[in-house]
Amino acid sequence: MTTATPSPTPRTRLSPAQRRTQLLELGFRLLATHSLDELSIDLLAEEAGISRGLMYHYFGGKQGFYEAVVQHAADDLYARTAPPDHGEPMERLLASLAGYVDYVVANHAGYRSLVKAATGGNDNLRAIYDTTFAALADRFFTADPGGLVIPDTPAVRLLIHAWQAMVEDLVLTWCDSPAGLSREDLLQVITTSLPALIDTLPG
Amino acid sequence: MTTATPSPTPRTRLSPAQRRTQLLELGFRLLATHSLDELSIDLLAEEAGISRGLMYHYFGGKQGFYEAVVQHAADDLYARTAPPDHGEPMERLLASLAGYVDYVVANHAGYRSLVKAATGGNDNLRAIYDTTFAALADRFFTADPGGLVIPDTPAVRLLIHAWQAMVEDLVLTWCDSPAGLSREDLLQVITTSLPALIDTLPG
Repeated sequence: MTTATPSPTPRTRLSPAQRRTQLLELGFRLLATHSLDELSIDLLAEEAGISRGLMYHYFGGKQGFYEAVVQHAADDLYARTAPPDHGEPMERLLASLAGYVDYVVANHAGYRSLVKAATGGNDNLRAIYDTTFAALADRFFTADPGGLVIPDTPAVRLLIHAWQAMVEDLVLTWCDSPAGLSREDLLQVITTSLPALIDTLPG
Repeated sequence: MTTATPSPTPRTRLSPAQRRTQLLELGFRLLATHSLDELSIDLLAEEAGISRGLMYHYFGGKQGFYEAVVQHAADDLYARTAPPDHGEPMERLLASLAGYVDYVVANHAGYRSLVKAATGGNDNLRAIYDTTFAALADRFFTADPGGLVIPDTPAVRLLIHAWQAMVEDLVLTWCDSPAGLSREDLLQVITTSLPALIDTLPG
């Protein structure tokens, strides 16, 4: 009987893009316990075990790092709320919103930090936030044969913007205090409230 | 024919409370063209033609002045949205919301500055904002024989909180870009959306 010494796991060398993504994910995780203002280059460099110089190499500086973290989180949110390709319109909306709820539940504190930073006066972060929610709204209107059939009018777009604000408030508040609503109850409310809201439009 | 020299208008001496109120109203008006951060004691003293020392006497300091301005605006909002004593529940809700819409229209930029400050991380301002909207929500449940009859449950309160976020977003966005909706259209949407939203609750 021969015993083979287990060969050491080969050390994977990350590409610069993979390394950058890893740092952005770490940055977003740190937002769960720190406000964006507290999330310094120094803190991230320490947590990641890399030099400040390398951090500056990847992100240019503090503001560039913030924007990269927020953009990465926004892209992740957009990907996780992709509706399935097939199914009834309301089922597909429900699946997309389930992605949103699960994302917020999993990243509650970090998501709240981002909203606070985006709405509190940082114009570049606000632009990323606004662009993301506009892209989410666009999903209702893009050539999408199985999508929710709602007319693309300025008034409907105004209502979808407000409905997004309502859904964000509802899901964040529900995370703190579910008020007797299960995840399924919450999903029913946010899904059926969209056509109900559009039905309130005159004419 | 005798000509009487018109007597000068008697100079009214304001009480300290009236003077303080006047300063708060000036502060709120200045928020239409300045962010809360830009609204300094110096700027207000200059605009009001009084000394910085008197400003400190009235408000203690910058943070005290901010909080007093926001509290004054919140009290004003609460007063202007008081529903009439009589009428059908939905008519009374409509009248209360008309007060809200007209308040936001008249103070659009200032209101937006306050929301930004309250949601962006100033905890004392956030507390005033939250307390005000909780008081507005309480109106639906206080002993109010002609009020909208909705059950007082934690889930309904969760939904009213989210509905308020939706109404605020809708009215602020409508001020910038009305999307073909008249004031009456907007009022119809925000009024009828409350019972429509509560109807989405399961059970």
